Amino acid sequence: MSFEGDRHHALRVLSVSKHRFGAAGEVGLFSMTASGLEPVLDPSALLLADRRAGTAGSIVVPVLEGQRPFLAEIQALVVKSVLPTPRRAAQGVASGRLALVLAVLEQRVGFALGPLDVFASVVGGIRVTEPAADLALGLALASASAGVALGEDLVALGEIGLGGELRQVVHTERRLVEATRRGFRRAIVPASAPEPPEGMTVVRVTTLAEAVAACELGLARLKSAS
Amino acid sequence: MSFEGDRHHALRVLSVSKHRFGAAGEVGLFSMTASGLEPVLDPSALLLADRRAGTAGSIVVPVLEGQRPFLAEIQALVVKSVLPTPRRAAQGVASGRLALVLAVLEQRVGFALGPLDVFASVVGGIRVTEPAADLALGLALASASAGVALGEDLVALGEIGLGGELRQVVHTERRLVEATRRGFRRAIVPASAPEPPEGMTVVRVTTLAEAVAACELGLARLKSAS
Amino acid sequence: MSFEGDRHHALRVLSVSKHRFGAAGEVGLFSMTASGLEPVLDPSALLLADRRAGTAGSIVVPVLEGQRPFLAEIQALVVKSVLPTPRRAAQGVASGRLALVLAVLEQRVGFALGPLDVFASVVGGIRVTEPAADLALGLALASASAGVALGEDLVALGEIGLGGELRQVVHTERRLVEATRRGFRRAIVPASAPEPPEGMTVVRVTTLAEAVAACELGLARLKSAS
Amino acid sequence: MSFEGDRHHALRVLSVSKHRFGAAGEVGLFSMTASGLEPVLDPSALLLADRRAGTAGSIVVPVLEGQRPFLAEIQALVVKSVLPTPRRAAQGVASGRLALVLAVLEQRVGFALGPLDVFASVVGGIRVTEPAADLALGLALASASAGVALGEDLVALGEIGLGGELRQVVHTERRLVEATRRGFRRAIVPASAPEPPEGMTVVRVTTLAEAVAACELGLARLKSAS
Amino acid sequence: MSFEGDRHHALRVLSVSKHRFGAAGEVGLFSMTASGLEPVLDPSALLLADRRAGTAGSIVVPVLEGQRPFLAEIQALVVKSVLPTPRRAAQGVASGRLALVLAVLEQRVGFALGPLDVFASVVGGIRVTEPAADLALGLALASASAGVALGEDLVALGEIGLGGELRQVVHTERRLVEATRRGFRRAIVPASAPEPPEGMTVVRVTTLAEAVAACELGLARLKSAS
Amino acid sequence: MSFEGDRHHALRVLSVSKHRFGAAGEVGLFSMTASGLEPVLDPSALLLADRRAGTAGSIVVPVLEGQRPFLAEIQALVVKSVLPTPRRAAQGVASGRLALVLAVLEQRVGFALGPLDVFASVVGGIRVTEPAADLALGLALASASAGVALGEDLVALGEIGLGGELRQVVHTERRLVEATRRGFRRAIVPASAPEPPEGMTVVRVTTLAEAVAACELGLARLKSAS
Repeated sequence: MSFEGDRHHALRVLSVSKHRFGAAGEVGLFSMTASGLEPVLDPSALLLADRRAGTAGSIVVPVLEGQRPFLAEIQALVVKSVLPTPRRAAQGVASGRLALVLAVLEQRVGFALGPLDVFASVVGGIRVTEPAADLALGLALASASAGVALGEDLVALGEIGLGGELRQVVHTERRLVEATRRGFRRAIVPASAPEPPEGMTVVRVTTLAEAVAACELGLARLKSAS
Repeated sequence: MSFEGDRHHALRVLSVSKHRFGAAGEVGLFSMTASGLEPVLDPSALLLADRRAGTAGSIVVPVLEGQRPFLAEIQALVVKSVLPTPRRAAQGVASGRLALVLAVLEQRVGFALGPLDVFASVVGGIRVTEPAADLALGLALASASAGVALGEDLVALGEIGLGGELRQVVHTERRLVEATRRGFRRAIVPASAPEPPEGMTVVRVTTLAEAVAACELGLARLKSAS
Repeated sequence: MSFEGDRHHALRVLSVSKHRFGAAGEVGLFSMTASGLEPVLDPSALLLADRRAGTAGSIVVPVLEGQRPFLAEIQALVVKSVLPTPRRAAQGVASGRLALVLAVLEQRVGFALGPLDVFASVVGGIRVTEPAADLALGLALASASAGVALGEDLVALGEIGLGGELRQVVHTERRLVEATRRGFRRAIVPASAPEPPEGMTVVRVTTLAEAVAACELGLARLKSAS
Repeated sequence: MSFEGDRHHALRVLSVSKHRFGAAGEVGLFSMTASGLEPVLDPSALLLADRRAGTAGSIVVPVLEGQRPFLAEIQALVVKSVLPTPRRAAQGVASGRLALVLAVLEQRVGFALGPLDVFASVVGGIRVTEPAADLALGLALASASAGVALGEDLVALGEIGLGGELRQVVHTERRLVEATRRGFRRAIVPASAPEPPEGMTVVRVTTLAEAVAACELGLARLKSAS
Repeated sequence: MSFEGDRHHALRVLSVSKHRFGAAGEVGLFSMTASGLEPVLDPSALLLADRRAGTAGSIVVPVLEGQRPFLAEIQALVVKSVLPTPRRAAQGVASGRLALVLAVLEQRVGFALGPLDVFASVVGGIRVTEPAADLALGLALASASAGVALGEDLVALGEIGLGGELRQVVHTERRLVEATRRGFRRAIVPASAPEPPEGMTVVRVTTLAEAVAACELGLARLKSAS
Repeated sequence: MSFEGDRHHALRVLSVSKHRFGAAGEVGLFSMTASGLEPVLDPSALLLADRRAGTAGSIVVPVLEGQRPFLAEIQALVVKSVLPTPRRAAQGVASGRLALVLAVLEQRVGFALGPLDVFASVVGGIRVTEPAADLALGLALASASAGVALGEDLVALGEIGLGGELRQVVHTERRLVEATRRGFRRAIVPASAPEPPEGMTVVRVTTLAEAVAACELGLARLKSAS
């Protein structure tokens, strides 16, 4: 039995590592209460509380922990470095995927992030390592670089290849249902993604560059709905 | 069964890592006595003994170990560096969260910590990794930088986002009850925090910058009560 | 029981590490669905979805996970570095094998990669560490360096020695059958490889230099069929 | 079952890591003899043999291993560095606590150790990680820096905070009883320490600076008794 | 149960780490086939396939995995470095032993390898850490440096001391029998090695320098037989 | 059950890590033979074969593995460095103890080793981490620095403190008996060491400096007997 996220965080993602093909329901989010570990009925609500509108560098991604989707907020901060080797600091994001997404942002989209300190973080002490969060991470970094906030009702979903292309991720529908349930209305997804649930509009893109362009150009439109 | 904090510290935080959804009471603080491991009835008292009033860079945070809150003192020391790459030394604080809090202090609050050696520590050999301790860590660093001591009856509680915003943490009430029981009278908390227990006054802030301002400007007032 | 690939990726490669010479069928690819972990019937299809034609630095290799072959896409990105020590970033590829393949590309084939940042990745969060993927990695790097895309119906298979020579890998036939089944028509293989299955043409080479030459020179021909 | 100290050292500190709240007596010091592992009846005697009087940089601290106190000698060596980044080498001392104690010595006491190579070690291959050994470590470093030996009948006990203050440690009495039994007559302890056993004189200090001053100024007096 | 070599390599060296003094036959080489893990009847044949004659930097060493000897090919590549700190990259060779062998080559034999990038690798994803492979590693490095290929029918066997001397290794006879069975006819061995099996000629040397000299001077002779 | 030394070395030091205070005889040296793991009756003989007389930087130390002593040869190589940060490479010696012994050699004995590359190794792939081997390591380094070989019939035994003093080690008698049995006739030991067995002469020293002086000055005498 091990806990994901910071080990002492009261909100815990519990993975029973020794079960043998058991029910996937054994994997879920738990909170430590006065009566012990109790399942969190609405982890997305807890994780999104106190989110600030209009802050550049923030976006939400529907992640999977076991079969249960929940919404995680990814944040980025990009600042001029005073060090000979600029910092790459990831908290809750796999540093390998951060390096990959930064390389694509630089080479395929045209951002010049090399001489900058880059920070990326997931709110709530949660650790998100799915490639499915690549697009959200890329957009958070682009938003922080541009100093332009993304729409509050926007989620993003997709793996990024080194060619800059977006790749399908599993269980897109189930993830978008959870985002819709929580009030999100727009999603940036790979072109091949399935139809979204009712109440959710998807923006289909084939590359990270297209996704960045869609957010910058269509920002007023996306924001007007929020 | 594993022990948190320095392994040889006589005060131990015991986590039974193999229990299956057992009573949360299996997780607690233990002291090694002549009759073996015995629960510490009042860990906060032990951890706060010998605290010195009027020292810059020190603040108390109510942390959770299992369902039981106790008070940990976070300390910071910020000094001019003589090294090409200034030091970032964390003892009992997760280095990843220290990096995140430092980035926000620099970018969102305006502190220039880059060329300084930074030390952060938790008294008693305890390891605190909850994002809930972010605000206390940020204030300890700000206090050390400014060379201004924080009030002795002050605690702080809240996760810090890369946007500089403060985020809700779980079990705020239970934590503040423990702080009140130990004689603390003021708490800096996120704006959305629940009502404090009787005898505790809360200062609600939405960003780390506001928290820093509240402490600096309101320092005389906060201190006058101590 | 442990999961290969990113631990939270919905597509998982499950290795039962405690079985005792059990059926190899216990090792395979699983997806997390609403009813729990379920075997993925066609992992190659899932991993190759959204592949973009005409992108330099991409090639497919039939890998083995247990006795079951599936197709993994290896990607490379090679860019001018602004750092004193150029980056070598591997995601899903063993960094040791990347260093070896880069050394051979430089010394035995004549590529000048030293002052460049090099990124290598496997799509889908899968981790490929077989030496059998050396040739695909070498061709992805050469393709990215030359800025010339490889044919879409091309796979590559073979271990690379420090002399630049290609070495036999086990189960070549079974791997090529899977590639053929998925629509691939050409394979670059070591000279000693067995006969390919019907529908697959093999290009036999003895060194990485020959493989690179075959792809560059024969590119029009290889591409015309795709 | 694991062994502290160097794994092949004949004197071993045995920790039975799987006992469930068992008798603390299961934790102790063992020696490997012809009949197997046997408890060491007097570990302090073994550890202090061959101690040299009048050597700067050496002091003894009563540490706890389980409920059993024994005496460990901490040594320091401070020399001019020829390297761009001076060395910080710790053998048997946690490098994190060494960094903390060095920072306090520099910032709160006034030692200039930055450009020097610093070595710290515990005699006998024992590993001491208790914060309770901070004061002994600080005094060993100060003694080595000043080139002045500490009194032979002196022990020190206390955790050091980043403010330079000394903090209480658990089981001070039991530790001082062991020191007294072994012939030590003076102890430097935090101001709040309990009364010492008969035959032991305590010097109460509130900061590391006071402790350093007490040893330098009072050195003749402290030494005259030895 | 753990697998040596790259974990996903189809040819695996299986070590049953929990057997209790069981039959050594439980340790061996396995291949993953359609019916599961099956012992490889002739691992040397598989590992030596596609070896290229006349390539500098390659030599074969008979290693032991459990009680079963098999032949591993060690390769080296030595090239001018463009980096401030030249590379030392080992794939399948312990980096500690590579450093030791390089030091002896420089100090006791006279090779100037300091400013060069050095790569060492074992074919087949196998990991060889026996000191018995030191001599083969040293000769591969010397051959790569000199740009002179070693004879194809040559194996080498021996541990290298820091004095440059060759040390006996266990089970020399059994190793040479395996080499002879696979068609190797010459072996460079420490002076004290036992008599070789029929069909194998040994060159006895006392130092790495002598071994290097024997290969360079006697190269024509050694090669003429191959 | 774990194996010390290089894991694939045919001579293995077997530690049964799960025995409960069992017979110490369960810990010993084993060789892998045709009938499986078999105890090595005379490990010292195997480890000392092919030792070369008259080579600077080599000395033998009687170490303990469980209750069984055997003789290990420690070697050192000290050469002018061409790197900005000189190398410190330890094979089979704990790097922490190497750093400590080097510091004492420089500060307490007067050797200038800072700008030199230093290599230390134990013959046979054995790992020696006992502080008891400090003196042998120090003398090997001094011998290598001076370019003067130590006597062949000489062993050394003792822990080195940061003050340069030699400390008692456990089971000195049993160790010297093994050295005597193997033909060694002289031992350098701490002043407090017990009487040696018949046939062994001890040179008693109180510091590493004295030990170094004894070897240099008394070298002719010590060598004449060999």
